[in-house]
Amino acid sequence: MNRDAPIGVFDSGIGGLTVVREIMARMPYEKMVYLGDTARVPYGVRAPETVRRYALEGARFLLERDIKLLVVACNTVSAVGLSEITAITSIPVLGVIEPGARTACKTTRAGKVGVIGTEATVRSGAYAAAIGREAPGIEVKSKSCPLFVPLVEEGWLEGEVPVMVAAKYLTGLKDWGMDTLVLGCTHYPLLKKMLNNVMGTDMRLIDSAHETALEVESLLRASGMLLADPSDNRGRGTLELCVTDSPEKFAEVGGRFLGSSMDNIKKVELEAYKG
Amino acid sequence: MNRDAPIGVFDSGIGGLTVVREIMARMPYEKMVYLGDTARVPYGVRAPETVRRYALEGARFLLERDIKLLVVACNTVSAVGLSEITAITSIPVLGVIEPGARTACKTTRAGKVGVIGTEATVRSGAYAAAIGREAPGIEVKSKSCPLFVPLVEEGWLEGEVPVMVAAKYLTGLKDWGMDTLVLGCTHYPLLKKMLNNVMGTDMRLIDSAHETALEVESLLRASGMLLADPSDNRGRGTLELCVTDSPEKFAEVGGRFLGSSMDNIKKVELEAYKG
Repeated sequence: MNRDAPIGVFDSGIGGLTVVREIMARMPYEKMVYLGDTARVPYGVRAPETVRRYALEGARFLLERDIKLLVVACNTVSAVGLSEITAITSIPVLGVIEPGARTACKTTRAGKVGVIGTEATVRSGAYAAAIGREAPGIEVKSKSCPLFVPLVEEGWLEGEVPVMVAAKYLTGLKDWGMDTLVLGCTHYPLLKKMLNNVMGTDMRLIDSAHETALEVESLLRASGMLLADPSDNRGRGTLELCVTDSPEKFAEVGGRFLGSSMDNIKKVELEAYKG
Repeated sequence: MNRDAPIGVFDSGIGGLTVVREIMARMPYEKMVYLGDTARVPYGVRAPETVRRYALEGARFLLERDIKLLVVACNTVSAVGLSEITAITSIPVLGVIEPGARTACKTTRAGKVGVIGTEATVRSGAYAAAIGREAPGIEVKSKSCPLFVPLVEEGWLEGEVPVMVAAKYLTGLKDWGMDTLVLGCTHYPLLKKMLNNVMGTDMRLIDSAHETALEVESLLRASGMLLADPSDNRGRGTLELCVTDSPEKFAEVGGRFLGSSMDNIKKVELEAYKG
């Protein structure tokens, strides 16, 4: 493994850019290569076996780039396909479920954690399982929120509609008495402000993207693979973006997720990576 | 071409079942084979070249079944990929745009027609072009409504949230003075009741699924290919359903579109149809 090699970030589409953004903010000297399978997004509504098939193709594509670490930024893939990906490589593979689950366990005082995500993520029970391994006494309730992703992609991050949708999805969880809510989908951090208003400031929102970036940093540091110094990598990180649908569409919405504009977006085919 | 051959119906996912339903209601003796590309739905957010690539695979799959007519039930495919499909076959290929556009022209008194659909359908300008060919004097305004499909799939067909979303999307069109609104996406007929409430009973809603079924009937009748009699096809039609993602998920939501429960759902692969 090569310390100068890029970090690979895989996502079903555009949401994983929230993870990229957090990694860039903490580790500005790293090179990154991102793959968003925008021609087949969303994964969260599909059957687990379909998600696994798509995820393996994406993972093989990134592994061929000689990455030093593979971050699976997509909650759905992390929930249903992480072990399949881990099985085809010897480099570390990091999903977004464990970091979010661990932080939720440290955060809750009521011992009641809510988890929201796509249908596939919720149905998998992956967050509940991860929280159960970490702190068996903590109760977990999950709720899929299928309208949140389209709301974010439409750019309706605040106002009546998202507030009403959020209330409809989350009133049950709030009444149950949770004090911590895991945002188990990479799109959801963009709804944080609105969710804070709806849930009240006492509710702690756990952003998996942020927690995952912290874990990437500590993993690279522990293995001596972190580029931590301005002299590393000639003083600047890079970001190469690969997508399976048109780059134009990705650029249009992606800025909202990355918090800055993007160039260097390439369209790629995954045909050759069916394994 | 064989009169006893099935009608092929292609859709990106589940919405095309509204077309199937209308065909079954009018032509109960026909055999039908449906393909929903549920592993890659939705098409409406993707680039036209990606939609065309997927659509050709689906069309080739159905053409191999020796169908007598291919109905492209998906508005997005009808808008951006119909001529590509027509080019690979000698059987008639019928999209949903022309029938809806023609009826809209006959319906409007104000000479102002609104069209709603997916982003790809609206961006293509296909309805405006079809209406322009039919009746050049009619003005057309289009609006993409990306949240309508997830609302339908979530089953939120009435109530505060869809009403508010519809008002947000459609107030501009209403104020403009249209008296006819084309539901340019197969999911939208399920929102008809709610849209009637929001738009008022004076607004005429054009259901492309219904109009397309009428056109299928007259096309088959004109070419002597219609099974119009109980003695045809041993007195009953059949429906074979093929999907690319799991049949379970399709069965779950599909009943809402078809208006009846479904069996005989097969999972198929389109790998071999890349052409």
